[in-house]
Amino acid sequence: MIGVVCLNPALDITHYVAAVDWAGVNRPAAVHARPGGKGLNVARTLHTLGADVLVLGLLGGRTGDGVAAALTSLGVPAQWTRIGTETRRTFTVVDSRTGDAALFNEPGPRVSDGELADFGVRYREALDGCTAVVLSGSLPPGVPEDAYAGLISLAAAARVPAVLDAHGAVLRRGAAAGPAIVKPNLAELAAVAGRPLDGAGRPAVAAAAGDLRAAGAEAVVVSLGAAGLHAVTTDAVWSAAPPGPVLGNPTGAGDAVAAALAHGLVLGRPWDERLRHAVAAGTAAAMAPVAGEFSLADYTRLLPAVTVRRDGAG
Amino acid sequence: MIGVVCLNPALDITHYVAAVDWAGVNRPAAVHARPGGKGLNVARTLHTLGADVLVLGLLGGRTGDGVAAALTSLGVPAQWTRIGTETRRTFTVVDSRTGDAALFNEPGPRVSDGELADFGVRYREALDGCTAVVLSGSLPPGVPEDAYAGLISLAAAARVPAVLDAHGAVLRRGAAAGPAIVKPNLAELAAVAGRPLDGAGRPAVAAAAGDLRAAGAEAVVVSLGAAGLHAVTTDAVWSAAPPGPVLGNPTGAGDAVAAALAHGLVLGRPWDERLRHAVAAGTAAAMAPVAGEFSLADYTRLLPAVTVRRDGAG
Repeated sequence: MIGVVCLNPALDITHYVAAVDWAGVNRPAAVHARPGGKGLNVARTLHTLGADVLVLGLLGGRTGDGVAAALTSLGVPAQWTRIGTETRRTFTVVDSRTGDAALFNEPGPRVSDGELADFGVRYREALDGCTAVVLSGSLPPGVPEDAYAGLISLAAAARVPAVLDAHGAVLRRGAAAGPAIVKPNLAELAAVAGRPLDGAGRPAVAAAAGDLRAAGAEAVVVSLGAAGLHAVTTDAVWSAAPPGPVLGNPTGAGDAVAAALAHGLVLGRPWDERLRHAVAAGTAAAMAPVAGEFSLADYTRLLPAVTVRRDGAG
Repeated sequence: MIGVVCLNPALDITHYVAAVDWAGVNRPAAVHARPGGKGLNVARTLHTLGADVLVLGLLGGRTGDGVAAALTSLGVPAQWTRIGTETRRTFTVVDSRTGDAALFNEPGPRVSDGELADFGVRYREALDGCTAVVLSGSLPPGVPEDAYAGLISLAAAARVPAVLDAHGAVLRRGAAAGPAIVKPNLAELAAVAGRPLDGAGRPAVAAAAGDLRAAGAEAVVVSLGAAGLHAVTTDAVWSAAPPGPVLGNPTGAGDAVAAALAHGLVLGRPWDERLRHAVAAGTAAAMAPVAGEFSLADYTRLLPAVTVRRDGAG
């Protein structure tokens, strides 16, 4: 069972409007509401891939009830710790004429120390049944920036490997706690490295990833958008790329990559196969019309077309 | 007790954003959620005015639970008939730099014949305790356009006077069922009259209002925005106007007028006083920063400054 930590889930509401009047009254032609936030995207992708998954999260208020019910109807098991504040919404308006999308992300609910401690108790209990944990997404107000680091240390003590997808101080602190895999994108890697990496070439990316390994992460997988993945593992440096340019929605692609990396980890796949599956999952997610979802048919079709190359020793 | 029919309530969510990026990601500085829809605005105004009020409405799903809980916390009593579909949301994005507001009104939930029949049973029971009923706002999908007419007829059979705020065919059908008061605005009156009334002068407005009286309404009160009210009652034609131009938000002002008219009706106020209170309530609502709310202090201060004139016999 893969435990997926979701400290800041959301109800994602999308309105599709034919031609938005940004200073007037609009009547959406279609309205969709779905469970959202990076952690729940990872959990849904793992469920779609056929993995045994358990969401471990914080939830509050009637918006939280809506998230829980929607996840249940999708068949994704979850163990929630209730909080006294209301789970956030995100609101997206898509102009179906221009394709423009405006996103409005509500701030997360404030979490108390007691609620976080309650979560910790349930998390430790759940670790017994976990073969891996994934820690992904933003922390809500009130949760300290070393929260993921603490959860990774607890997992390590229970011999459960962790996959971390975070940024900034949360990534830096988390990497030091010894996760099996961290998955920054290029901008996130540059931010923790403290130097620009856009266009800096593969050796510079590998060096920055090496710094995160030196800090404590066993492996670093850098997502490069349409260019695929660059990985630095215990004994090698890898490149993996999709078959061609993908026009699509990058939102959610990174979550699919994190999910596939965790899946490959628990299945004991060798790194070249892990990366192949991760690129196929990320590309299929980018091709999907709805962020955080993807078609298994696209994923399966992409798998043999992904290029994986061992660039050298780590 | 004044019964307020709310067949299509809403959860009104407002995001305040410093400078909206209409094609990107925004993080609202403030988020407000409140019970909405015209009927609930009328009920809240009546409650603020000190009237004994009971909301009679349809509610479904977790959004409906949120509406019910918010109304309870405001101290407004309600008797809900549950439906199997989800109560609608409205989203308003306010750019706090430009003041522009974009509204996104979700379609109402589809109501089944059986659910509407359940509502009818509870409505008839509630009529026993009502001194008046208010029927206000749009009908959700599945509810026929003669629904208000049927509810007005049931009220008439129980000797309960009705105040109707609707438009189009729903107004025309409803007026024929003999409500005590109908409250169209000028555009709504013009639409049922089938001729333009903007700038047509008071005699033309009085004539169109007279047509609605001839159709079955006892009194017709036409809201003219900042110009106040024009009323045609059993024996007179009236004008009532606020003391000066009001800069504000007209959304919700008509609901405050309907509430004050119903309040005056059950208090047995003479028409000049009914209209004075209605103009004061509508103006106070237009001055309020949040649609559907107003300050009792503004209302009280405006009352003696409202001009009411009897223009002649009805």
